[in-house]
Amino acid sequence: MADYRQMWKDLGMDLELHDQLCEVLPTAFGDVYLSQEDRPESMDYYNFVVSEIHGVRPAELIESQKKGGKVFGTFCVFVPDEIIFAADAIATGLCGGSQFWVPGGEKVLPTNTCPLIKASVGARLEKTCPFFRIADMFVGETTCDGKKKAWEILAEDVPIHVMDMPQMKRQKDLDAWTNEISIFKNKVEEFTGNEVTSEKLSQAIKLINDKRRALKRLYEFRKNENLPISGKDVLLISQIAFYDDPTRFASMTNKLCDELDERVKNNISVFTAGTKRIMLTGTPMAIPNWKLHHIVETSGGAVVVEETCTGTRYFENLVDETKTIIDEQIEALTDRYMKINCACFTPNTGRIDDILRLAKEYNVDGIIDVNLKFCNLYDTEGYFVERALKEAGIPVLGIETDYTDQDAEQLRTRVGAFIEMLSNK
Amino acid sequence: MADYRQMWKDLGMDLELHDQLCEVLPTAFGDVYLSQEDRPESMDYYNFVVSEIHGVRPAELIESQKKGGKVFGTFCVFVPDEIIFAADAIATGLCGGSQFWVPGGEKVLPTNTCPLIKASVGARLEKTCPFFRIADMFVGETTCDGKKKAWEILAEDVPIHVMDMPQMKRQKDLDAWTNEISIFKNKVEEFTGNEVTSEKLSQAIKLINDKRRALKRLYEFRKNENLPISGKDVLLISQIAFYDDPTRFASMTNKLCDELDERVKNNISVFTAGTKRIMLTGTPMAIPNWKLHHIVETSGGAVVVEETCTGTRYFENLVDETKTIIDEQIEALTDRYMKINCACFTPNTGRIDDILRLAKEYNVDGIIDVNLKFCNLYDTEGYFVERALKEAGIPVLGIETDYTDQDAEQLRTRVGAFIEMLSNK
Repeated sequence: MADYRQMWKDLGMDLELHDQLCEVLPTAFGDVYLSQEDRPESMDYYNFVVSEIHGVRPAELIESQKKGGKVFGTFCVFVPDEIIFAADAIATGLCGGSQFWVPGGEKVLPTNTCPLIKASVGARLEKTCPFFRIADMFVGETTCDGKKKAWEILAEDVPIHVMDMPQMKRQKDLDAWTNEISIFKNKVEEFTGNEVTSEKLSQAIKLINDKRRALKRLYEFRKNENLPISGKDVLLISQIAFYDDPTRFASMTNKLCDELDERVKNNISVFTAGTKRIMLTGTPMAIPNWKLHHIVETSGGAVVVEETCTGTRYFENLVDETKTIIDEQIEALTDRYMKINCACFTPNTGRIDDILRLAKEYNVDGIIDVNLKFCNLYDTEGYFVERALKEAGIPVLGIETDYTDQDAEQLRTRVGAFIEMLSNK
Repeated sequence: MADYRQMWKDLGMDLELHDQLCEVLPTAFGDVYLSQEDRPESMDYYNFVVSEIHGVRPAELIESQKKGGKVFGTFCVFVPDEIIFAADAIATGLCGGSQFWVPGGEKVLPTNTCPLIKASVGARLEKTCPFFRIADMFVGETTCDGKKKAWEILAEDVPIHVMDMPQMKRQKDLDAWTNEISIFKNKVEEFTGNEVTSEKLSQAIKLINDKRRALKRLYEFRKNENLPISGKDVLLISQIAFYDDPTRFASMTNKLCDELDERVKNNISVFTAGTKRIMLTGTPMAIPNWKLHHIVETSGGAVVVEETCTGTRYFENLVDETKTIIDEQIEALTDRYMKINCACFTPNTGRIDDILRLAKEYNVDGIIDVNLKFCNLYDTEGYFVERALKEAGIPVLGIETDYTDQDAEQLRTRVGAFIEMLSNK
């Protein structure tokens, strides 16, 4: 890793505490990722991004700030990045995926809060993540109780704009979201000093759609019987999509896909024949949360699709690129974003349709419904999801976990038994 | 208790399971309530209501149904009862306050859900509460993740209308709530077949305001140095307010207040001098949840005010009675209801103002911030509440509890130590 200590110091980070994180990450990454055999060569780019995770991209963000650009930190796939990029600003994902940050979050949040929120707040308050130091403004949303109230604590430390997510999907709720996007546009314009013109927004819509298209192309390879890339690797790429430069990300991911095209032609698979095809559905997996993928893929399974916010919910459906008037473009944003079937909506039956569709498209053998501990939304919705899957005759395993390693062995036993059960069917 | 077995059977209740509840309730009530000395004579009415809790009022509701009236079951102080009564229907609170119902809820809901929700769902699904059997329609709201998703499960069993609660309090959010009330009015009209005219709504506004005025009058007595009534008794009255006939409730409560007037004149107090004056703030206490009041009032304290949904949030602020046009009346409802400072809003600084104001008005010595386990909203907001109280020099004790008795001794120790600390100040 290059030396970024001066940069981190300038960002007001807690260097000593941050060193502890820097010490464990390479080992974890080595164990989970570099131990894989026959990875695509183009994964080198993503390996590099992780190896310099708190260096290269933060340095780029700071560079853009020096030129007067603003950086917006976001926590949710509902926040329309298009608006931010259209104002010549940069959006970067900020979710925390490591147990390292959890105790810091627990200093101000209830223990009974999901680890994703605790880690995010901890990363900011304990000054151990450069992205959380760099962001000029944070963008929150009211998608769950835990986040909604956590913003109030973060707001004491940083400027934060909160978008009120409607809790249903009637036409009036869609209109309400359109209005929230307009308010957000005004806020971004005011904060950046840059107008979001229809031309700029058109470009930004294309920019983010290109990222989605690249991810969609990548996921298509997972529908093959021969899997040219592991689920773990795709998860890593999806995680990086949240904060990498979108143009570069799309370009590098398309380059990887070119390599995968070759692999498919040559019938290359990174899994042995008979490996069980697993879908994960449920809560997001923020970097560096690779726990469940690693367990599945070292237990006779391959993760072939994730119906999560770090999976299909992030890239499925494009924003209509044909609109040229700002109001119509914003409606097009609403159309696309409100197609995301998040458990924050009541009801959310569309998600079950998604899962059943994806199960077919990716030809899955079994589904693991994974819930981050204390996420009441996905946990309650799991009741319907698991029932629907049983009715459809698709084997399902419900799992609740957090960022600690305490349950790793127990999970390994349960996942192993589940996959063995699939093999004996 | 009179014999209501045939009625319960007709309601499709699980008589055997229900018998178990009927067996324990009188003992609990006797231990907590009838053991008190020098209670106002007018408490006899409320004692009677509790002794016949699953009999008298349910029989009245069934009687009104026989005449073509509808019964709406509600779970939240934001649902405007006025609309329901204006349609010649009856609103009744449905929240569950007993551990008895929790295991039934846990069959379909995550264990990590607050006991109030688990008990409510359990009471319905296990058929052990007549109110849950009688209601023709349930009215839910999106005030928290747990409830929002629980409605989806209840909706498989009963007709349920969900009101989308805005998560903030900007003007546009108030307008959105006005719109939700209008939609609710249409739904109620359609379901009952009765039009909500401005005249009927005027009467209903007056009806519910009268209940609020009676509760306000009752609470005023708790501002006295001599407390003519215990906190436990006031809690019981507040709990009964949620499902009793509003006219009778106001009348009986005013009768009690007449008696309390006499007590005040005669300097009668049900507590000995030096008893510490305690405010409870936080989550609601549905009947028969008397746990914390009982502990406080048998540990040298008197509960003089509850900043909860079963306390001041239920009755403070009246609906403007001067409006005569339906749209203006609905706006008046919004004005009143959106003054409730619930932790479901972000931010919710008004609640801290309320607590500080109430602490003065009721001359409290200390505050217990009580949170029902797994209520993330109030738990997270407790961070601000407890900090504000410390800054204001008001002693505060944070407590998390549920409906079980497992922590009763530990709570008694903590509450006792807190009150002793107040005495030594």
